[in-house]
Amino acid sequence: MARIAVVAGDGIGPEVVAEARKVIDAAVPGVEATEYDLGAARYHRTGEVLPDSVLTELAGHDAILLGAVGDPTVPPGVLERGLLLKLRFAFDQYVNLRPSRLWPGVASPLATVKSGEVDLVVVREGTEGLYAGAGGTLHRGTPAEIATEESLNTRHGVERVVRDAFTRARRRERRKVTLVHKTNVLTHAGSLWARTFEAVAAEHPDVTTEYQHVDAAAMFLVTQPQRYDVVVTDNLFGDILTDIAAAVTGGIGLAASGSINPDGTYPSMFEPVHGSAPDIAGRGVADPVAAVLSGALLLDQLGHADAAARITAAVSAELAGRGPEVSLRTAEVGDRIAAQVAA
Amino acid sequence: MARIAVVAGDGIGPEVVAEARKVIDAAVPGVEATEYDLGAARYHRTGEVLPDSVLTELAGHDAILLGAVGDPTVPPGVLERGLLLKLRFAFDQYVNLRPSRLWPGVASPLATVKSGEVDLVVVREGTEGLYAGAGGTLHRGTPAEIATEESLNTRHGVERVVRDAFTRARRRERRKVTLVHKTNVLTHAGSLWARTFEAVAAEHPDVTTEYQHVDAAAMFLVTQPQRYDVVVTDNLFGDILTDIAAAVTGGIGLAASGSINPDGTYPSMFEPVHGSAPDIAGRGVADPVAAVLSGALLLDQLGHADAAARITAAVSAELAGRGPEVSLRTAEVGDRIAAQVAA
Ligand SMILES: CC(C)[C@H](C(=O)O)[C@@H](O)C(=O)O
Ligand SMILES: CC(C)[C@H](C(=O)O)[C@@H](O)C(=O)O
Repeated sequence: MARIAVVAGDGIGPEVVAEARKVIDAAVPGVEATEYDLGAARYHRTGEVLPDSVLTELAGHDAILLGAVGDPTVPPGVLERGLLLKLRFAFDQYVNLRPSRLWPGVASPLATVKSGEVDLVVVREGTEGLYAGAGGTLHRGTPAEIATEESLNTRHGVERVVRDAFTRARRRERRKVTLVHKTNVLTHAGSLWARTFEAVAAEHPDVTTEYQHVDAAAMFLVTQPQRYDVVVTDNLFGDILTDIAAAVTGGIGLAASGSINPDGTYPSMFEPVHGSAPDIAGRGVADPVAAVLSGALLLDQLGHADAAARITAAVSAELAGRGPEVSLRTAEVGDRIAAQVAA
Repeated sequence: MARIAVVAGDGIGPEVVAEARKVIDAAVPGVEATEYDLGAARYHRTGEVLPDSVLTELAGHDAILLGAVGDPTVPPGVLERGLLLKLRFAFDQYVNLRPSRLWPGVASPLATVKSGEVDLVVVREGTEGLYAGAGGTLHRGTPAEIATEESLNTRHGVERVVRDAFTRARRRERRKVTLVHKTNVLTHAGSLWARTFEAVAAEHPDVTTEYQHVDAAAMFLVTQPQRYDVVVTDNLFGDILTDIAAAVTGGIGLAASGSINPDGTYPSMFEPVHGSAPDIAGRGVADPVAAVLSGALLLDQLGHADAAARITAAVSAELAGRGPEVSLRTAEVGDRIAAQVAA
C-alpha cells in the first residue's frame, strides 16, 4: 500500500489537507500517511526549515501531500528557497503540472467564456531557469549595488519536460502543445527551447504545435483561454501563466498542482496553488477543493487513475451544486466530496 | 518648433503612423517630421538593421514616433535586439510608460469591470534586467548544451525608475504605487528592488504603497484591475503585465507606450504596443488609436500637455461613439480624431 508524507504546513494548510486526506481515504482506503511538521510555525519555534534528516525521510515516501507554508513574518525566500524549492530541486521534480478547467457552475471573470470551454494544462519546468538560485549581489546597500539573477537552461532539462508535454498531449483529445517563451529577447535560452521543441515535435507528427511569446500568451489566456490544450514553458513563465489560468477559471482557490518526478526516482509532491491565507485561517471557511484536486493528481501519479477520476467527478458535482454566493464550511465540503467518492 | 523622427516600419506601421501624424499636426501645427526607413523591409533589402549614422541622426531629434517593425520572416531577435532594444538602451530610455484605461464604450473581456473603473499606468524599467543581453550558449546543438540569460539590476537603474513612478503617482488622484517583483525567489534582485522602493517610499509619505509578487499581480490584473494606480516593475515583468493590462482594457489595439529618457539627454520614443500585424496590413482596417495615443504621450513629453489632453479627449469620444461590432477604416478614424482635436 502507498505511503505518503503529509506536510500540512501553516494557516489554512492543515484545514484543507485534512479534507484532501478524507477524500483520498474514501477513494483508496489504506493509504498510509505520515505527518511532517514543516513551515513557518516550526521555523519560528526552532529556526529549522528542512533538516537533512527530514529530507531523507521524505525521500522514502511514494508521494508528498503539502498544504501551504508561510506567513507574513517570515522573510521572503526563507521557506520558498529553503523548503518548497529545496524539495522540487532535491527530488528532481522537473514537471510542474498545473491543470486549469472551468468547471460547470463556476463563474469565470471573463464575460464570454462558458463552463466546459477551458480545459488546459500547463507543464511548467520545475528544476531550472531563474529558479536555479544562481545570482548575487555586490556593494550591497551602496549606490554602486548590483544584483544579478541567472536563468540556467540545459538541453537535458528542457528536453525532458518538453517530452513530457508531448506525451501528455497525446493522451488528450485536442493533441496540441503550445510552447511559450520570449525567444525574441531571451535569444540564448529561447533558441535552446525552440530548437528542442522542434526536435521533439518532429517525432510527434500527430500533435499540433504552436509558439507564442510570453506576453502574447498572457494576453490570450485572458482573451481566448479556450485555445490552449497543453502549454509547456519555463519555470518563471509557468509561475505567472498558471496564476492567470487559475484566475480565469475561478481563482487559485480551485487550482491544484503537482511537482512531479516522472522517472519515479524521487517522490512527487502535490499541493494547492493557493498560499496559507493567514487572514482566514482557523475559521473553517477555506475552500478545500484545490487540496482535494491535488490529492487526485497524487493518486493518479501513484497509478490510481480510476480513483483520481472519481474524485474529479465528485468535485465537479460539488462545484456545480454551489450557488454564486457561497459561504462554505471546509469540513462539509470535504465530507460531501468524500461521500460521493465512496458511493 | 519640435523636430521628430518617424519610423513607420512594417505591416500596419505606416498606416497607423499616418493617422498619428495627422492628429499631431492638428493638435500642434508645425511639428517637423523626418522619416526613417527602418524595419523588416529595409533589413530584407539591404541587410541593415540600424546603421550607426542613422542612430546618430535619430539622436538629434526631440522625439521618435514608431509604428511597428517586424515580419514573420525575420529571425527572432534581429529587429528586437538590433533596433527596438538598441534604441531603448542607446537612448537610455529607462522609463517604459504604459497607461491602461478602460475607455467609455469599450468592452472589457471581464464581466464585472465597468468603463472608467480601470485607470492604471505601468512604469516598466527599460534599460536593465533580463533585457540587458547578458547570456550565452555552450555546446550548442549537443546534448550537453547550456544556455543562460542574466538579469542585471543596479541601484542606479532601479532607483531612478522607482523615483519616476513616485513622481507620477503624486500627480494622480489616488497616489498609490505598487511594486511588483518576485522577491521570494529572485532574492538578490528582489531585495535590491524592495530596499530601493522602501527608501524612496519613505521620502513620499503622501503616497500609498504596496508590494505584490508577479504571479499574484498577474492574477489581480484579471480579477481586480481597479485596484492599481501606478505599478512599477522590472523590464520582463513589465512586458508581461502590460499585455495583461491591455487585454483587460480592450486589447493591444488601444495600448500606447512611451520609452522615455526623462533626463532629456536623448530622445524618447513612442509606439503602439501592437505589432506590425502582417495579416491585416495594406487593407486600411487597422485601428490607429494606439498610435494616436502614443502621439499624445509624445506631445505630453515635449511639453504640450494641453494638446495631449485634447487628443485623449478626442480618442475617448471616438471610442464612445463606436458600436460593439466595429468595422473601421484607419483613415476615417484618424480624420475624425484630427477634426475633433482641431475644433
Ligand atoms: C511560493 C513560490 C516559491 C512558488 C513559485 O514561485 O513557484 C509559488 O508561487 C508557486 O507557484 O508554486
Ligand atoms: C518586441 C519586444 C522586444 C518588445 C519587448 O519585449 O519589450 C515588445 O514585446 C514590447 O512590449 O514592447
